[in-house]
Amino acid sequence: MTNVDKKARKQIHLGVFEVNGINHLTQGIWAHPGQERVRYNDLEYWIEIARILERGKFDFMFFADSYGYPKKGRELLLREASGTPGNDPMLLIPALAASTRHLAFTMTTSTTYEAPYANARRFATLDHLTRGRIGWNVVTTSSSTAADLFGGGDLIPHDERYDRADEYMDVSYKYWEGSWEDDAVKLDRENRTFADPDKVHQVRHEGKYFRSTGVLSSTPSPQRTPVIFQAGSSDRGRAFAAKHAEGVFLKAPTVEVLAGQIRDIRRRAAEAGRDPRQIKVFTGLSVVVAPTREEAERKHAEYLSYQSREATLASYASVTGIDLNALDPDSFFENIHTEMGQTHTDRFTKHSKTRKTVREVADDFLQKGFRGLTVIGSPEDVADRIAEWTEAADLDGFNLEPYILPDSYRDFVDLAVPVLQERGLFRREYEAGTLRERLLGEGIARLPENHPGAGFRPALSESRERG
Amino acid sequence: MTNVDKKARKQIHLGVFEVNGINHLTQGIWAHPGQERVRYNDLEYWIEIARILERGKFDFMFFADSYGYPKKGRELLLREASGTPGNDPMLLIPALAASTRHLAFTMTTSTTYEAPYANARRFATLDHLTRGRIGWNVVTTSSSTAADLFGGGDLIPHDERYDRADEYMDVSYKYWEGSWEDDAVKLDRENRTFADPDKVHQVRHEGKYFRSTGVLSSTPSPQRTPVIFQAGSSDRGRAFAAKHAEGVFLKAPTVEVLAGQIRDIRRRAAEAGRDPRQIKVFTGLSVVVAPTREEAERKHAEYLSYQSREATLASYASVTGIDLNALDPDSFFENIHTEMGQTHTDRFTKHSKTRKTVREVADDFLQKGFRGLTVIGSPEDVADRIAEWTEAADLDGFNLEPYILPDSYRDFVDLAVPVLQERGLFRREYEAGTLRERLLGEGIARLPENHPGAGFRPALSESRERG
Repeated sequence: MTNVDKKARKQIHLGVFEVNGINHLTQGIWAHPGQERVRYNDLEYWIEIARILERGKFDFMFFADSYGYPKKGRELLLREASGTPGNDPMLLIPALAASTRHLAFTMTTSTTYEAPYANARRFATLDHLTRGRIGWNVVTTSSSTAADLFGGGDLIPHDERYDRADEYMDVSYKYWEGSWEDDAVKLDRENRTFADPDKVHQVRHEGKYFRSTGVLSSTPSPQRTPVIFQAGSSDRGRAFAAKHAEGVFLKAPTVEVLAGQIRDIRRRAAEAGRDPRQIKVFTGLSVVVAPTREEAERKHAEYLSYQSREATLASYASVTGIDLNALDPDSFFENIHTEMGQTHTDRFTKHSKTRKTVREVADDFLQKGFRGLTVIGSPEDVADRIAEWTEAADLDGFNLEPYILPDSYRDFVDLAVPVLQERGLFRREYEAGTLRERLLGEGIARLPENHPGAGFRPALSESRERG
Repeated sequence: MTNVDKKARKQIHLGVFEVNGINHLTQGIWAHPGQERVRYNDLEYWIEIARILERGKFDFMFFADSYGYPKKGRELLLREASGTPGNDPMLLIPALAASTRHLAFTMTTSTTYEAPYANARRFATLDHLTRGRIGWNVVTTSSSTAADLFGGGDLIPHDERYDRADEYMDVSYKYWEGSWEDDAVKLDRENRTFADPDKVHQVRHEGKYFRSTGVLSSTPSPQRTPVIFQAGSSDRGRAFAAKHAEGVFLKAPTVEVLAGQIRDIRRRAAEAGRDPRQIKVFTGLSVVVAPTREEAERKHAEYLSYQSREATLASYASVTGIDLNALDPDSFFENIHTEMGQTHTDRFTKHSKTRKTVREVADDFLQKGFRGLTVIGSPEDVADRIAEWTEAADLDGFNLEPYILPDSYRDFVDLAVPVLQERGLFRREYEAGTLRERLLGEGIARLPENHPGAGFRPALSESRERG
């Protein structure tokens, strides 16, 4: 392949889908003897993981998070470390940033449970400490256990949660984009001027859901607004993503359904006046890779041998509300629409109508769980599928979903990444710059002009005052 | 001096009083050419500072914090980097923990602005990641700018803030001490039992100020409850400290006044059924040290030459409400009680009645600001004063208040620490174990039995259910 051919290829972006806990996408696999996720309390474990990913030139670690946990089946969940325990992932990021130079971090926080100003200060701090290697995955929590932990109020209805989240974004943009002008910090010792007071502005927000007045305590950070990620796939969720998101995570049962969702989100973004290419779409990717396909299949079977059938079906019930164990295994699922998704990311994708039996649905789920696109094979198989799916669905990248750590990442980095690089599908070296520049292009460290958050900059103070 | 003599000496504990920002205790000193505090956005700067302190065998870095900032004189404050800007200090701790092995960290959070469960999860995470090197400085925020940033509600009256804080502590203890029994985590792969569900308990809290139900997501960490620090010196604040605190920061205008406060806090602790020796009392200590006293005095004068008179008097006005510039310089302060303290730590100490003129008060303040006990001298002078004050006031330790960084810490570590060690006043090597063990003694990694938080352990479930 010539250099010209390589140039012409669309390069993919790669993240990993992580939680700061043991449980992940295969219930029960904590018991695998090679599973080091049980070391999640240990900073050295995480540093080791981050360094493997940086060696593999990964774009970012995406940390899902929720204060909540599954409501039912407490005993089983504790025995199988399923959905609990876990720690706050945000507090890993500074240590991982200090241990890497390029790897970026996307952190999930909820517009329901964090005060807008506190959240804004945390992300501004992280943007400084990571030198622009931070993204924010915006969620509106629907967990009833989280509601109980935070005082037991009623859950806010789904669409209203998004209205509230829209306003939350405005408050956040005001602080990140509107508080300090670019050249407000002078650091002029001779003239005793640290900052020019005329270039620092008071934010005023009086809205339906939030009131906030003051100045962000953090000076301008490399990206100001962290790269905004979103994963809601309801109609209202997609409208929110089309307006705010720069990175979108979508999961669908087939590549065709996924392609349709991606077309839809790009169309909505264009209608909102944004560049549809400035929304980078990722999907989940589960990979078991070995030098040969046979070895990969053996390895996959060995992983699944540690799966807990009971905990896996409980995770299905927890998300869909359907207890497959309680239904006649030979009855049909016909015309039943179930909602599938990740409990951790509040992401749901509609099943299409299916003529499978309950037994078949259970067996499918035991093979796949809530994983995304899956490939079990040789490095060439992995590269073939990635190239094919990228093209077919107009994807920008993938979020790798591990089985056991660090092996799942190490195998991918050692075996699959070199083939992706050889085919021109993935970077050989990191580009310079912030996470946003890596995703959107050199020089785009800050929100693009056509992003709604850019309207809150002091230069456009008319619109800033409107909020 | 023989080994026996050394043993007999009471060893002191040493912390540093830090903020994640530029401003600190001498307004205007950011402009000093050697002042690297302006690098506070940079993780490498902080790692360098932490490593100097660990080389000096310091116990901990104490991070003051507030969402608020001084309300008046915005222009001056921005020009002099006084009280603003700043970042969230909690997000430094994981990176500093990964860069050190023994140094501990005390983080300030507010019972007014953090939800109890979110705060509990953050500290449990930090206790895991630091392996028991974490303390919590509990504050009840009185800042009106913080209130504006968080929605503009009215400030809660002082004493009611402490009632609320008392209940906040109960909720926190329930999660830290009561959720998981010590041997709940089995990690038994063969029998597929990660945790024993019978040893994990649902917390239920329905109080006057807080409601919260659920299980802490974090498994038992080395200390469970972080080491509790407190710095309020009002009557209600001292009652709170005597009940909850394991480390207390007090500041007083003279060693005699300080000695009285320390007697009072130990007496109150004993009345509350606690061991008065399990409250470690620290005071602020400002040191300029050089090989000779003359050099130290020259260095001190050089530091103060960068002080801003205007910003210094503004910081006085911001805390006391008294604008010294607006008063007749020759009038007397007689019978005026002023409140002095740190804006960042919500700590106030009463001035005794003074017969000084306004000019004299201003001149005193320009020399000393809100600093604590101060010694400008040779390493021997520093050790003499530390020994004398420790004895006179029954102190357990000092919080070093820097002038410029890293020089203030480097000078102390290189010059003063060896003399303190030689005299048996300070450790030569770190003890093993957690922060609590370092302060209270080997084996005391967890709250002592007579601490009220210990009453929320599952073994004492009667009292746990009462809350």
